[in-house]
Amino acid sequence: MKNYISIGLLGLGTVGSGVVQLIKNHQEELVHQVGCEVKVKSILVRDVEKERDIQIGQTHLTTDPNELLKDPEIDIVIEVIGGIEEAREHIIQALEAKKHVVTANKDLIALYGPELQQKALENNCDLFYEASVAGGIPILRGLSDGLVSDRIQKLMGIVNGTTNYILTKMDEDGLSYETALKEAQDLGFAESDPTSDVEGLDAARKMAILARLAFFTNVNLEDVEVSGISNVSVEDLNYGKKLGYVMKLIGYAHMENQQLEVNVQPTFLSKSHPLAAVKNEYNAIYVNGEAVGETMFYGPGAGSLPTATAVMSDVVAVIKNMRLGVNGKSFIKPRFERVLKTPAQRFGQYYFRLHLKDQVGAFSKITTLFNELDISFEKILQTPISKNELAEIIIVTHNVSMERFERALMELRDLSVVEEVISYYRVEGDAKK
Amino acid sequence: MKNYISIGLLGLGTVGSGVVQLIKNHQEELVHQVGCEVKVKSILVRDVEKERDIQIGQTHLTTDPNELLKDPEIDIVIEVIGGIEEAREHIIQALEAKKHVVTANKDLIALYGPELQQKALENNCDLFYEASVAGGIPILRGLSDGLVSDRIQKLMGIVNGTTNYILTKMDEDGLSYETALKEAQDLGFAESDPTSDVEGLDAARKMAILARLAFFTNVNLEDVEVSGISNVSVEDLNYGKKLGYVMKLIGYAHMENQQLEVNVQPTFLSKSHPLAAVKNEYNAIYVNGEAVGETMFYGPGAGSLPTATAVMSDVVAVIKNMRLGVNGKSFIKPRFERVLKTPAQRFGQYYFRLHLKDQVGAFSKITTLFNELDISFEKILQTPISKNELAEIIIVTHNVSMERFERALMELRDLSVVEEVISYYRVEGDAKK
Repeated sequence: MKNYISIGLLGLGTVGSGVVQLIKNHQEELVHQVGCEVKVKSILVRDVEKERDIQIGQTHLTTDPNELLKDPEIDIVIEVIGGIEEAREHIIQALEAKKHVVTANKDLIALYGPELQQKALENNCDLFYEASVAGGIPILRGLSDGLVSDRIQKLMGIVNGTTNYILTKMDEDGLSYETALKEAQDLGFAESDPTSDVEGLDAARKMAILARLAFFTNVNLEDVEVSGISNVSVEDLNYGKKLGYVMKLIGYAHMENQQLEVNVQPTFLSKSHPLAAVKNEYNAIYVNGEAVGETMFYGPGAGSLPTATAVMSDVVAVIKNMRLGVNGKSFIKPRFERVLKTPAQRFGQYYFRLHLKDQVGAFSKITTLFNELDISFEKILQTPISKNELAEIIIVTHNVSMERFERALMELRDLSVVEEVISYYRVEGDAKK
Repeated sequence: MKNYISIGLLGLGTVGSGVVQLIKNHQEELVHQVGCEVKVKSILVRDVEKERDIQIGQTHLTTDPNELLKDPEIDIVIEVIGGIEEAREHIIQALEAKKHVVTANKDLIALYGPELQQKALENNCDLFYEASVAGGIPILRGLSDGLVSDRIQKLMGIVNGTTNYILTKMDEDGLSYETALKEAQDLGFAESDPTSDVEGLDAARKMAILARLAFFTNVNLEDVEVSGISNVSVEDLNYGKKLGYVMKLIGYAHMENQQLEVNVQPTFLSKSHPLAAVKNEYNAIYVNGEAVGETMFYGPGAGSLPTATAVMSDVVAVIKNMRLGVNGKSFIKPRFERVLKTPAQRFGQYYFRLHLKDQVGAFSKITTLFNELDISFEKILQTPISKNELAEIIIVTHNVSMERFERALMELRDLSVVEEVISYYRVEGDAKK
């Protein structure tokens, strides 16, 4: 029997290089943790000849996945190739060959997590994916081990570094969305095609994975309602600031009476909320448990080495399980049927900004409408704007159902005194409330 | 074989009551997690007749520890009785009777952790103590599982809720130390004898435990240098604010070239530091790892139910290990000889405030002294004070060894132009530096 662990690495991009580097630089720590050496035996790449920054030493590079997946000596396959179909096939093949799998692939896990987990279970293999959510933050273990005895009620995440960077720059430096995005791209915090980040899809994938673990139910990616930040304006950020808020792209997951709501949307947070201080490209996940109350996990959401630490924490967990002979046992069973809340069951506070004709009695028409719908206001801010004899009004409601708020919006737009509803956002007030 | 897990609970105070409540209220979750019921069979109390707020149902109350420790049916002993000697004896007896032990006792683990861990190992038993540090925050698992593949360099903790509450009130409401302490006592955030909290001893115990796990070395409680907050003045907080700092009681642990420094002291944090936003009674541990970079774990540091969630996360871990037959294997072996840094090897920035005689050339005497010691200044703030023709000067140094800074202090006090050195504190600047 060989006295070391052999790893097959699928992909040698940003995360893959980090994994190679970490295994090399922290070999001593690894040996101490798991009692034997850990070696990367083979790496699947697209181009064997390509020049690379990292030293890969004796490691075998190949373009043929079978050289890893059919190699009986390889114990653990790390999938950091990205994408869906190819990665899925490789992982299934690895599990069927009784290899444990560690992946950082949020797209894949968001779409096929339960299916792949089932496949792992059938083969007595581990399938871990800590790195798929929030890079270096050990949030999946935090939920499934640390807060295991609690009943998690609410989970709010800043789980996309690109959008957090953009919103921070808009808020602190007054940059427009376009300029901030450009800056993020120049610094490598945003892709040249930023759609998946700025429109919230990336965050939605992570929220689906988090919600499954937190609420023990099979959340689908389609269950996550998404809106992105591309329409957020500096004006709204400034008004929010005046009212004591800061805007973040928040992934929100809430379970109440076994009914579920998961969405991603730009949200005004009270400045006293722990997530409000999370800036630039950093990520954080705020967890509200029935017993524990408020906790938050903060750290880098991406990057080569941070993400590689998450991958390697999974690898160490796999190896410890191998030593103990208990792989494939940490499957998290869904407990609940997935039941989504209706708009009438979803409550929140809302900020909205509108332009009102500057006529006598105009504002009272607004208050009458909201009175009739039984929606009360927490904050009001009115400023005259010079052009066109309009007044700009910002209102923050008290808690109201989404259904009722949407009805109010519709009726507002029909009022003759309302020139335009410029924008509206969800508000997350003081965390304690 | 019985199809449930029997727990013996030592102590029915704040945390003990939380444990009973959590096991009752979250029984369904527990069954789902561990596949069987979890029952508290017996509880050791001081007075069986005492009226209690919580319902204990069929559970047997006793004043005789042997009724738990010698009961062959009891699988897991939870120690939440506090104190040292009695708790230690009970835990040793439990381990020798092959019972797994979960404890929330930081005093005991700080003093006797390695010895008790050894005893657990000899008996193939688990000994877990997640609740001993930072209540509901799963920081010990975060370090030993989540960041397992990284090399942790620095750990900074706000690990005492009482002092954080007091400092927050002094900072935000301008209360004096005495008034803020009184308020904390009235709200139950401080004991009637607050010494162990305000003088930093409680934080020191937690830092010893954290440093052992983070750095794989047997840190003793005596290795932790401690100074508390009872001399902190509102004046210093206000000057700090002007310079962009907020004061926190920081537990600081740093490993460099396998040399170690652990201390607890009031510290000025840059407002941009993630720990600066941690307010009131909340705790947080900031971890800086070579690969992962900056992470932070935030949550309630005390309280009945939050602490009970940490206890129960350990209980679930024990039961899972029982099911898999792998108890007593998660012992963390020390890797390094404990070598403490000398004052010449300990670097930091310092804030100091002094009263200077208002004479021509007085300030240049100060700068000459610091020049000679090769200490440069990052910030200077000078304000005349009316009485006695004195000037008040605040200086923040660049990075300097503790040895050299202490020599500067000594020489400062000898200068004829220096009336008095009022105060000095360590400064932790921008986290990125």
